[in-house]
Amino acid sequence: MATPVTITATDAPDQPTRTPELEALYRGFEAELLIPLWTEIGDLMPPRPRSKALPHLWRWRNLLPMAEQAGALVPVGRGGERRAIALANPGLGGRPFATPTLWTAIQYLNPREDAPVHRHTQNAFRFVVEGEGVWTVVNGDPVAMRRGDFLPQAGWHWHGHHNISDRPMAWIDGLDIPFQYFAESTFFEFGPDEVESREAPEHSRSERLWGHPGLRPLSHLEPTPATPLLAYRWEHTDRALTDQLALEADGYRATVEPGHAAVRYTNPTTGGDVLPTLRTEFHRLAPDTATATAREAGSSVYQVFDGVGEVTVGTQTWTVERGDLFVVPSWEPLTVATDGGLDLFRFSDSPVLERLHLHRTEKETRP
Amino acid sequence: MATPVTITATDAPDQPTRTPELEALYRGFEAELLIPLWTEIGDLMPPRPRSKALPHLWRWRNLLPMAEQAGALVPVGRGGERRAIALANPGLGGRPFATPTLWTAIQYLNPREDAPVHRHTQNAFRFVVEGEGVWTVVNGDPVAMRRGDFLPQAGWHWHGHHNISDRPMAWIDGLDIPFQYFAESTFFEFGPDEVESREAPEHSRSERLWGHPGLRPLSHLEPTPATPLLAYRWEHTDRALTDQLALEADGYRATVEPGHAAVRYTNPTTGGDVLPTLRTEFHRLAPDTATATAREAGSSVYQVFDGVGEVTVGTQTWTVERGDLFVVPSWEPLTVATDGGLDLFRFSDSPVLERLHLHRTEKETRP
Amino acid sequence: MATPVTITATDAPDQPTRTPELEALYRGFEAELLIPLWTEIGDLMPPRPRSKALPHLWRWRNLLPMAEQAGALVPVGRGGERRAIALANPGLGGRPFATPTLWTAIQYLNPREDAPVHRHTQNAFRFVVEGEGVWTVVNGDPVAMRRGDFLPQAGWHWHGHHNISDRPMAWIDGLDIPFQYFAESTFFEFGPDEVESREAPEHSRSERLWGHPGLRPLSHLEPTPATPLLAYRWEHTDRALTDQLALEADGYRATVEPGHAAVRYTNPTTGGDVLPTLRTEFHRLAPDTATATAREAGSSVYQVFDGVGEVTVGTQTWTVERGDLFVVPSWEPLTVATDGGLDLFRFSDSPVLERLHLHRTEKETRP
Amino acid sequence: MATPVTITATDAPDQPTRTPELEALYRGFEAELLIPLWTEIGDLMPPRPRSKALPHLWRWRNLLPMAEQAGALVPVGRGGERRAIALANPGLGGRPFATPTLWTAIQYLNPREDAPVHRHTQNAFRFVVEGEGVWTVVNGDPVAMRRGDFLPQAGWHWHGHHNISDRPMAWIDGLDIPFQYFAESTFFEFGPDEVESREAPEHSRSERLWGHPGLRPLSHLEPTPATPLLAYRWEHTDRALTDQLALEADGYRATVEPGHAAVRYTNPTTGGDVLPTLRTEFHRLAPDTATATAREAGSSVYQVFDGVGEVTVGTQTWTVERGDLFVVPSWEPLTVATDGGLDLFRFSDSPVLERLHLHRTEKETRP
Repeated sequence: MATPVTITATDAPDQPTRTPELEALYRGFEAELLIPLWTEIGDLMPPRPRSKALPHLWRWRNLLPMAEQAGALVPVGRGGERRAIALANPGLGGRPFATPTLWTAIQYLNPREDAPVHRHTQNAFRFVVEGEGVWTVVNGDPVAMRRGDFLPQAGWHWHGHHNISDRPMAWIDGLDIPFQYFAESTFFEFGPDEVESREAPEHSRSERLWGHPGLRPLSHLEPTPATPLLAYRWEHTDRALTDQLALEADGYRATVEPGHAAVRYTNPTTGGDVLPTLRTEFHRLAPDTATATAREAGSSVYQVFDGVGEVTVGTQTWTVERGDLFVVPSWEPLTVATDGGLDLFRFSDSPVLERLHLHRTEKETRP
Repeated sequence: MATPVTITATDAPDQPTRTPELEALYRGFEAELLIPLWTEIGDLMPPRPRSKALPHLWRWRNLLPMAEQAGALVPVGRGGERRAIALANPGLGGRPFATPTLWTAIQYLNPREDAPVHRHTQNAFRFVVEGEGVWTVVNGDPVAMRRGDFLPQAGWHWHGHHNISDRPMAWIDGLDIPFQYFAESTFFEFGPDEVESREAPEHSRSERLWGHPGLRPLSHLEPTPATPLLAYRWEHTDRALTDQLALEADGYRATVEPGHAAVRYTNPTTGGDVLPTLRTEFHRLAPDTATATAREAGSSVYQVFDGVGEVTVGTQTWTVERGDLFVVPSWEPLTVATDGGLDLFRFSDSPVLERLHLHRTEKETRP
Repeated sequence: MATPVTITATDAPDQPTRTPELEALYRGFEAELLIPLWTEIGDLMPPRPRSKALPHLWRWRNLLPMAEQAGALVPVGRGGERRAIALANPGLGGRPFATPTLWTAIQYLNPREDAPVHRHTQNAFRFVVEGEGVWTVVNGDPVAMRRGDFLPQAGWHWHGHHNISDRPMAWIDGLDIPFQYFAESTFFEFGPDEVESREAPEHSRSERLWGHPGLRPLSHLEPTPATPLLAYRWEHTDRALTDQLALEADGYRATVEPGHAAVRYTNPTTGGDVLPTLRTEFHRLAPDTATATAREAGSSVYQVFDGVGEVTVGTQTWTVERGDLFVVPSWEPLTVATDGGLDLFRFSDSPVLERLHLHRTEKETRP
Repeated sequence: MATPVTITATDAPDQPTRTPELEALYRGFEAELLIPLWTEIGDLMPPRPRSKALPHLWRWRNLLPMAEQAGALVPVGRGGERRAIALANPGLGGRPFATPTLWTAIQYLNPREDAPVHRHTQNAFRFVVEGEGVWTVVNGDPVAMRRGDFLPQAGWHWHGHHNISDRPMAWIDGLDIPFQYFAESTFFEFGPDEVESREAPEHSRSERLWGHPGLRPLSHLEPTPATPLLAYRWEHTDRALTDQLALEADGYRATVEPGHAAVRYTNPTTGGDVLPTLRTEFHRLAPDTATATAREAGSSVYQVFDGVGEVTVGTQTWTVERGDLFVVPSWEPLTVATDGGLDLFRFSDSPVLERLHLHRTEKETRP
């Protein structure tokens, strides 16, 4: 497993002349597993983030048939755990990483199928761009999944899924797998092969305890690092965005920029992000809106929920539509524009950077 | 304004013999404005809190006619500011203080009447036990008031009220006036004589921005010391309590104790109390429920919202019904029981004690 | 104990005409223990804090002989607990309160005398303006007391004092007794009649664990609401102030204003105030320095540690010298000036106001 | 820069039979840049952290001569920036990373030499195992470096070094370069080629402002994410450890385990870690001490400061002595034992894991 050390100096500033003495020293370094800063600094300490990840778009119309095909060919069960197919950013060495820190996959469950129960330190969520019929069971609490719903899943909670309907269902999983893989913090444990409960209630117990705005159960007063609310329903998200645009129209400060409404999903016990490592948001652009160009340290993944728009990330521009997924690498400039209106789900690793005081943003000032 | 100092030793432990020398020393103390600890310690440092306040009950059926009478006789306007009539605890020296820290008043507004705009450092809220037709206008945002609604009002925000209906309306005001009077932290400023807006929307702007469970506007990401949500509507409170009792019936942990559902009103930007100095809660006892006897450092005021119950505070026991207000002084034991079910609004100074690490509770363990 | 309610309207704005109907209503209010806001608002809600406390100075040269006299006449023991003589502000109704929230007393211990062990929720500290020979024993840890030392004493820690020397010793106690008396949060418990340890080490165990700058014992990683460091020695305070003035002389930002060095005593586990309710600071004015006039919501007590100066609080001006104690009531303007240099110890209730978001300051801008 | 995707299934649980249909699906995945979870889960989600890094020891007696040789052959200047030679963990693909998150290098400065001024988002520190004569100049404040001193260097502060002596000096640099490289959060800016000040004071300005235990300058009351104290001097560290062992000998809780004293370097404005991403500690084992075996999620680097000991990391055991550096990968068990006593400097990425709620430890319970 040990790898040899070789001193090169690609992407490096002016280097000392490679005299025989220096070459001998470098061979000595290599033998001792040492590498100088001066041959590496260009790559390691650039003036601003230069992401290994590339801007990239995955088309939902291509993803979904492949997930269906996997539904026909690949069983779900203990070991493989999930029929999840991950986005592999072309800049990240053929690994199943959408960005250096974020995992994104389409998950697919056939009618009457179970995904077995397990738990892991990775923080996760599901977002549903279309369909219904699956309940995710979290610590024994069954949570319905329907179009527009956002379902966070904090690390180290038991969870499994089951499809109670006669139709297959696909959705998006987001996790911090690459981050925890890199940080080497990952623990994993198997639970039962089947979900603990086949009930299919309209509302999970978590929503009945935590889903009332500004009201906290007196039986649960301790803040928790991740949200105890297991479903953020589309009707609320939609209404919040509609209200923001209406308030803006009436002349009040309610949107991020003209025509651009946005909400962040938050942990009601703290007001902060739903998960310690993942930020999740929903953005709505009114018709005929274009965002200011913005950069942010850290990476994001977006999924188009509805509408059609034009997205520019760095030097790439795409026309996007329902279900399409795209990646914004660290510090790459992003602009979004739409004629007919555009709804976007977004998630990012911003809590990691913020909590470590590494977060930065830059916004184009318009003339 | 200066008061003389006289050394007595009431409520004091064994005292040194009052020799002529000691008397001379005490006269010297008095001349120099000095008082020994040993003559005062019994009163100042008791083994547990001994409140100056007394348990007391005010009957709504007595309060309301007096407020109506005041409506006929006393105008509302600049100077007096509000037609508010405060509870004066019989233990607190004839001051308009429900407890040493809490102000509670019934406020009354005639049809088409305005209460002028002002702001003050005192934190406030309104709670509506019956009626409707008044809008409170907070920093220009009109907020409807209806039965069961809770309306917090953070310190130093402009606010006035106006009754747009043809009927009078009464409600309860809660403030930290006694606390800030004592802490000498109070600032006050006059605004316009009439409210800035006579709009009467179903939902305030604050609700449209902040009233969606777990969703935070991206335009407002900084935590604020008090809640930005200006109305907590009865429909949400009622549903949260109903859900808790239903969850309890299904065998899940959701209530404070058997048959006793409760929510705390919280600031969505922090998950903490709505106001820096005031805790506000709503409690529902299912039929045939009795609470365990509990003590708490710090004081509370309760208002019966619905139902009939039996309340014991220290050595006092009352049968209470809709609108009745009662006081629980610091460390006095409280028990509540009901045959037919009881809904209670509560507020207290607990955030003051908690933030200063002075909070204590004690609950009877039942056999 | 119950007091009657009488409606007056002193210090009140324009009042409604006292018609017979109104008088009848007022009698009804009184019978029901009700008081209107409009008769009280002038006193309760002034435009800015109007302290009940008066600016006042106590001379050390008067205090100390009285303490000595008390040493001759009054024993220390169980019940009275401490030979402590408190400052009674002339504006506060003859109670032993230096300000509405702060207790300040001179404490005196004869040679070989013990003050018995107890604990209470009140937060406390000792500050030594002269003398030595007493050890305060906190949870069994003996802490030496010497000129210039500051010794915080968090609520609910056992503590007693004993004088191991052949000379009496006097010092200053500061506590939040009035605040907790008013907030009705006070618990008290007796311990042994004699201190647990008669050791008299140079350094307490707390200093050996916590007295190393920026170094935290791995055995004690949880933050604590009050400081675990039981002595802040004069040598450190003196050096910190000397360094600030030297840095200022070299052109660096190190002082509060020109010639005015100041440190705050802090809890090393949080960086915040040493005690949850009390702020403590040491200020040094270089020769020929005058401070800008400043106001602050909340009250302070100062003790002159060294030097001579001129102090103005509101309309009062005094020349002060070693040991003198003076009070700055809420929002009263304070100015201090000195020709020869002045060292001041200060404590205040600022943490109470800050944690409740009620803190305000105002500083004169100089031309 | 784009890399192809190839689906393998090494280190994977039971896989579906590779039928032609499945192979066709996998080719489709590859074309669309997709990778299934079920072929990757074994590597990505192991039951507990399996570090890519290997336990490894670098001998000071080998490192130092190489640094001296570099001093003879490689100039220091703009571009290369520092004569720093980094440890390259044999498990990390030939990159200059001691662990997946931590950079460790020996830095070397010839007599009268300067390392130019720059700033970067990476958090850094220096630790001096031997020598003196260099001042590091941080935002214009010259800080002496001597044996045993620890010098933190928060991200985005300007800094350069200069050797004012006639002897070369070597020390250790620790940074979060690998973490920020991976998180893609890194910004970098050049400053002047020479340090701003050639003063060589005994104490930096930061020490004069912040180096007094528990005392905070009133001119600097805002908490800062990293410590404002730029030097933690050996005399304090040494005394704190000596005191802990003496307290333990007297029967008080002061050490981590018997014979094992330890301090954490902390930020005096918060009581937390000195740097947002790096934890730094100093450990002292008394003679004839062995630690319990412990595991921790996240990685550490240790440097022996003094003494001789036996270190076991996973399956590796080494006898270590002054200056030796070794790596403890995530979740590898660590045991340290010594006959004659051992002083160890340690740093780790624990703040990253703690702030993201990913931190875990496990300690062997001894019989």
